[in-house]
Amino acid sequence: MKEILAAIWRQNFAGAGCSRESLETELKGCVTGEFTSALAKLEDEGLILLEGGSISLSEAGRKMIRVVVCGGVFDILHPGHAFILGEAKSMGDVLVAIVARDSTVEKRKRIPIVPEDQRVEMVGQLKPVDAAVLGYEGDPLKIIEEIGPDVIALGPDQHHNVEQMRSSLGERRLNVEVRRISEFKACELNSTRSILERIIERNYPNPQGEI
Amino acid sequence: MKEILAAIWRQNFAGAGCSRESLETELKGCVTGEFTSALAKLEDEGLILLEGGSISLSEAGRKMIRVVVCGGVFDILHPGHAFILGEAKSMGDVLVAIVARDSTVEKRKRIPIVPEDQRVEMVGQLKPVDAAVLGYEGDPLKIIEEIGPDVIALGPDQHHNVEQMRSSLGERRLNVEVRRISEFKACELNSTRSILERIIERNYPNPQGEI
Repeated sequence: MKEILAAIWRQNFAGAGCSRESLETELKGCVTGEFTSALAKLEDEGLILLEGGSISLSEAGRKMIRVVVCGGVFDILHPGHAFILGEAKSMGDVLVAIVARDSTVEKRKRIPIVPEDQRVEMVGQLKPVDAAVLGYEGDPLKIIEEIGPDVIALGPDQHHNVEQMRSSLGERRLNVEVRRISEFKACELNSTRSILERIIERNYPNPQGEI
Repeated sequence: MKEILAAIWRQNFAGAGCSRESLETELKGCVTGEFTSALAKLEDEGLILLEGGSISLSEAGRKMIRVVVCGGVFDILHPGHAFILGEAKSMGDVLVAIVARDSTVEKRKRIPIVPEDQRVEMVGQLKPVDAAVLGYEGDPLKIIEEIGPDVIALGPDQHHNVEQMRSSLGERRLNVEVRRISEFKACELNSTRSILERIIERNYPNPQGEI
């Protein structure tokens, strides 16, 4: 039943609303047609609210699933990203990727190669990711307040001070668990930096038109 | 029911075999527990074969689904790739991405930035893709013979001669439809070339350590 609850959350989060039809379309892997009775059961249990054709989770229903967020720049996608996002997804039922704004990244290290709208689109194309959104400049917790996740998954190279983050969350009365993914993915090019270095080294496309 | 048939094909293609348990795990979105009766029905209809715990498609079952392949280098992933793969997937029930070998690409244009094992891994992480495999050097039809697809989807920038391809397929007695995706995805960086150009232009990472 968690699959249905997660799909209801996802569809409402996407902003287009959730109806019986949209839900059935998303869950088309369902073997039998007993979809209506499954929804009725969830309503009886007080886990979902059916109001004028639109479906949402009740507070009790929301508590049945774990929403995880994982932030990053996601400039040029590599297996390290896929690994981190897979680990983050395994911490819950729904994963929202929070993509840093161009302006935020520029202040921290450099202008990203890929513009923010393309970065958010590509992260959203990865299998572990249920939704991808842009963060806000200046206030990293604003998007957390909006999403209301259960878990923030930090990558091994995200140098946030976990204790400080927990205390900021507490000040804003955000009851969110902060977990660090400690493992790295070992592969030849597992960072945007290593990909950029290789491109510069190869000097493509060059005046000889080698591309 | 197509969803189940597609999952059986996919699991057998992945090489680890397909059992009742592995199938049920994959199709966990199913609302009810009537999985066993659904399989029994498919067996009665002669669409699947159950032999000693392993499940496969009969010839008739295989004919119920359309397998699409889409080839490419997929060097640095961008929204153009996601668009093409989404279009290809919409032509059938299962999409296999065929990733060109480093050696094949080198002969045609340049050494890819990202090595073949990482390219195949990342393409396989994209939502429309059910499986990603490397092609063979020298004989582009060998992998087609192995996969046995119904459709080959060509991207708008893949300059194959469609008529020549059809005649080569005919010579090898491969009954495969060749379809071209004519639309391009419009966005700022919609080719590996444009991404490489921007990186060279920005000269990251540079000696000032701006990364």
